Amino acid sequence: MDFKVLFQPEGIESSGLPGLTVLELARRANIGITAFCGGRGTCGKCQVKVEPAPAPNELEKKHITPERLKEGYRLACQTKIIDSDLTVFVPPESRFFNLKVLVSGLTRDIKVHTSIRKYYLQLQPPTIEDQRPDWERMKSAISAASGFKEDDIIASIYLLRRLPTILRTSNFKITAVLEGKRLISIEAGDTAGQSFGMAFDLGTTTIVGSLLDINNAREMAVASRLNPQSTYGADVVSRINHTITEKNGAETLQQAVVGSLNEIIAEVCQKSGISPENIYEIMLVGNTAMEHLFLGLPAAALATSPYVGVYQGSINLPAKKMGLAVNHDAVVRVGPLISGFVGGDTVAGILATNQHHERALRLFVDIGTNGEIVVGNREGLWCTSAAAGPAFEGATIHFGMRAEPGAIDKVKITDRVLCSTIAEQPPRGICGTGLVETVSELLRCGIISEDGRLKSRCDLTDLPKEVLKRLQEEKGERRFVLAPETGIAIFQKDIRQLQLAKAAIAAGIQILLAKIPISLSELDEILLAGAFGSYIDPEAALRLGLLPLVPLEKIRFVGNTALTGSKMMLLSQDMKDEAENIPVVCRYVELFHEKGFMDLFVDNLSFPIPNLL
Amino acid sequence: MDFKVLFQPEGIESSGLPGLTVLELARRANIGITAFCGGRGTCGKCQVKVEPAPAPNELEKKHITPERLKEGYRLACQTKIIDSDLTVFVPPESRFFNLKVLVSGLTRDIKVHTSIRKYYLQLQPPTIEDQRPDWERMKSAISAASGFKEDDIIASIYLLRRLPTILRTSNFKITAVLEGKRLISIEAGDTAGQSFGMAFDLGTTTIVGSLLDINNAREMAVASRLNPQSTYGADVVSRINHTITEKNGAETLQQAVVGSLNEIIAEVCQKSGISPENIYEIMLVGNTAMEHLFLGLPAAALATSPYVGVYQGSINLPAKKMGLAVNHDAVVRVGPLISGFVGGDTVAGILATNQHHERALRLFVDIGTNGEIVVGNREGLWCTSAAAGPAFEGATIHFGMRAEPGAIDKVKITDRVLCSTIAEQPPRGICGTGLVETVSELLRCGIISEDGRLKSRCDLTDLPKEVLKRLQEEKGERRFVLAPETGIAIFQKDIRQLQLAKAAIAAGIQILLAKIPISLSELDEILLAGAFGSYIDPEAALRLGLLPLVPLEKIRFVGNTALTGSKMMLLSQDMKDEAENIPVVCRYVELFHEKGFMDLFVDNLSFPIPNLL
Repeated sequence: MDFKVLFQPEGIESSGLPGLTVLELARRANIGITAFCGGRGTCGKCQVKVEPAPAPNELEKKHITPERLKEGYRLACQTKIIDSDLTVFVPPESRFFNLKVLVSGLTRDIKVHTSIRKYYLQLQPPTIEDQRPDWERMKSAISAASGFKEDDIIASIYLLRRLPTILRTSNFKITAVLEGKRLISIEAGDTAGQSFGMAFDLGTTTIVGSLLDINNAREMAVASRLNPQSTYGADVVSRINHTITEKNGAETLQQAVVGSLNEIIAEVCQKSGISPENIYEIMLVGNTAMEHLFLGLPAAALATSPYVGVYQGSINLPAKKMGLAVNHDAVVRVGPLISGFVGGDTVAGILATNQHHERALRLFVDIGTNGEIVVGNREGLWCTSAAAGPAFEGATIHFGMRAEPGAIDKVKITDRVLCSTIAEQPPRGICGTGLVETVSELLRCGIISEDGRLKSRCDLTDLPKEVLKRLQEEKGERRFVLAPETGIAIFQKDIRQLQLAKAAIAAGIQILLAKIPISLSELDEILLAGAFGSYIDPEAALRLGLLPLVPLEKIRFVGNTALTGSKMMLLSQDMKDEAENIPVVCRYVELFHEKGFMDLFVDNLSFPIPNLL
Repeated sequence: MDFKVLFQPEGIESSGLPGLTVLELARRANIGITAFCGGRGTCGKCQVKVEPAPAPNELEKKHITPERLKEGYRLACQTKIIDSDLTVFVPPESRFFNLKVLVSGLTRDIKVHTSIRKYYLQLQPPTIEDQRPDWERMKSAISAASGFKEDDIIASIYLLRRLPTILRTSNFKITAVLEGKRLISIEAGDTAGQSFGMAFDLGTTTIVGSLLDINNAREMAVASRLNPQSTYGADVVSRINHTITEKNGAETLQQAVVGSLNEIIAEVCQKSGISPENIYEIMLVGNTAMEHLFLGLPAAALATSPYVGVYQGSINLPAKKMGLAVNHDAVVRVGPLISGFVGGDTVAGILATNQHHERALRLFVDIGTNGEIVVGNREGLWCTSAAAGPAFEGATIHFGMRAEPGAIDKVKITDRVLCSTIAEQPPRGICGTGLVETVSELLRCGIISEDGRLKSRCDLTDLPKEVLKRLQEEKGERRFVLAPETGIAIFQKDIRQLQLAKAAIAAGIQILLAKIPISLSELDEILLAGAFGSYIDPEAALRLGLLPLVPLEKIRFVGNTALTGSKMMLLSQDMKDEAENIPVVCRYVELFHEKGFMDLFVDNLSFPIPNLL
């Protein structure tokens, strides 16, 4: 006959036949209890308070302190239903945490499970009768705690050199930190609660890092820096050129970025009062070139056809070897790539939005210097990268600037011209979203023709006077002034730059949609990712023809999915494995070798629907 | 019905039923044919010439050149007996080599089989249609050649950084060097024939290194250096003290020894015209303290009871991390240890002499500053280390010196005193063997009493005049002059030093013999190892009571078994595995905690059998 187990504090009841363990019932009830050893009773992590508590067995006596045993704590894997109902309290330290990823309503529920494990060990000091060397002594204690075979446990010479001193100064009471079966740190006393990791999004322009508690997925702090490689070129190609033409150029670029990563690490550690020594794992994603430059890999082949990188699968390497100021034996993992132009940031984006698993047919667009585009669903994914150029990031635009305080980012034309700036600072220039909105408004008011030409004043006499006077002409070039006091304006050639950029992306999207093939009406959603994607006015994007014409409600902002995906990979082995498989299922399309791409590109140069909305 | 296969050039015949492969028959006939892939047809290494040659299959067409196919070459693993006898010629390049270890008549036949493999690969350069990254391209080619799964093949970031350039400068024709499944080198063109390793014996006094071709076990060159740590102390304890008392003492000692290893590497490479870049594996054995100091591990705990080291099993680590000037990704393996005082050199000695496998009951003695002693056979081994002090190495002896040119090493007393020196140079001092021989001769002639006292001239009036006048006395201390022109003599206190040293070893031997237990008559052999063991006069050793009293013919010199064992481990995975198990089967005896040791030590201080021989 079945007996009931009431799990607290959830108040969830589960029942089963005598002989079943509390751990098995917890699994059925979907209550996460940590059991690194899989329920063999060797890890001692599944301690729960049981009422009425059965007599403890030997394993329980070994792993549970006498005080806790007295309080009724037992191992969930060792406690079986016998002949009565049980009440089981699952304390926080025995739970594994799920990471709820929130990407604007898209949620993924992830089991937090890294390969980092900590074991607090109280060793017996050596005696004449027990002359085992320190490392053999450690291995045997780790083996007892973890269930790993002694012979499988390894350590670096760096740790072995420190082992005798740490053991003797800590009175042989230490915490062993393992990454898989590799000992990566030995810490005096009990530090089992201190386990952290860093997730990075290494962008061409901005680097963002998040410090996470890998025991419970809590984000401790976030910090960011401009990518210092920018001084060697705003775009990827000029940085690659720097590595080719300058002696030690690759090393310079690498050290620059490592310096910023270390600044971010120092900042988040300082903010949260955590020692960098307790950071054991780092996950980093970026586009293909950024990852190559970070790793110090030759990137020259990425700059010329057939655009071949060095690697595709993710790369693991010692953080110290990379110059990262964290635990000496920490590992840095650099995300897998899809192609020479579609990198780990896009893989992270697919992972974060779950595009590869959902039934919904989605178009994912991350617009920066390159526009990474992914189309498809669980049946199949196609991706490409459209060379938009740096227009959306403000470069190549006369008054262009990055989305920083003082950048004009919102523009409305009514009976006059209304602009707002980031942080409400006096206007200093125009950022990408400001450019898109301005052109969209100019189109809506008919100031720009279908082919992108700023019309002459004579053709626009019915415009409000306040608007009309902003349309000016000097030395044969027309411009539209946004901030008369500073002269900040959009020039005809800026509009041409935008046309080129949006045509590349729009044509790329159309090529990919045709791959499935899929009609616009079948598209369930457009996901806009990245900083630009998060601030752009979707109406403006539709009016420009940057995005295909779908109902507004189908457009969703998903934020920095590169960072989100990076965190997911950091925190979960399952996510690492999933990410590794994304380049296998996501087919890359090389736009310039697609028949019809150039025609589509030219078609998309014009603004076909100026009065759409 | 059975058909015959005649293997040439051996002329060995083997027979089997139709369906059996030539490879299988070769194995039965104990003919070594290389088959890295285990006979799956993927490595292409087992090419043999077959008469009559069957039609080649697809695998054979892939791995064998058209010319060779025409000549009748086939893969041994793919060629089956069908309906006729065959003649099979096994060319040298398809054989694996056995290493015949000759230790003064003791031979071990070892299958040469390291984890280093070279594959010559001709890759297809990337195209628009095949944009695989360089490393994916490499992995797929390595996988095809080796049979390893692509995902299992790994490489360091160091190699990945070099990969694009090497591929492009070598026109995508390269040799991949693998250690297990780890790519450790990429070399332009076909270098498959160039694979070398170094075996080291890291002695307290002398370091010896041997450069070996790991394809065929050929020794290319040998070189040696004095251990430069000697300037920090002749014995192990004073070097350990240096690491404790001096800041960076451990680092200094480590760098000193690494410097000498690099000198040896440079010398053997220069002698044999080989690039250090083609050295992929290093094996090093030494006593426990020497290995710890080489690895930069704290050795303090080795100097005080309970004499605990850091590790026991062998240690693998990157050679570059140790500062060794060989291939960047080469591995250095440091031999397993038995205890704080019985190290990798003794493990190598047991391995080389096969003491752990033979039925013969043997006593193995390697005399240096410590005398390592091993007693037993395949039924069980006991070992210990007796603190002989540096007397046998010439230190603490008034005119003592190392066994270098000019050292008196042979002494005979007839009607006069006959001495010879090493390299027949003018006498500069007395080395360990000279000391032993002198005391032995003095004992034989009755000049030394049973308790080790140099008698007075008055008691020795019947000695030849030429001998008697060598016995002199000054300031109350007696001495026996060996070289009157230089005054080189043995002093009474030198004899006391020798008594202490030999008593320690003799008592150690007696303790171990009692462990089995075994009587002297049951002892089949005494093996004398090491430089001292190779030059000592066995008669003298018996007369002094250094060795137990066995018939002279039972004493055998086995040379530098530490180096021999080191080479064996370098060349053979089987030997590595065997060595790893020796500390498990060889029980260590701590003499100072053995009841009766001090009594035996005191008993052995005297010379009980002055006129034995």
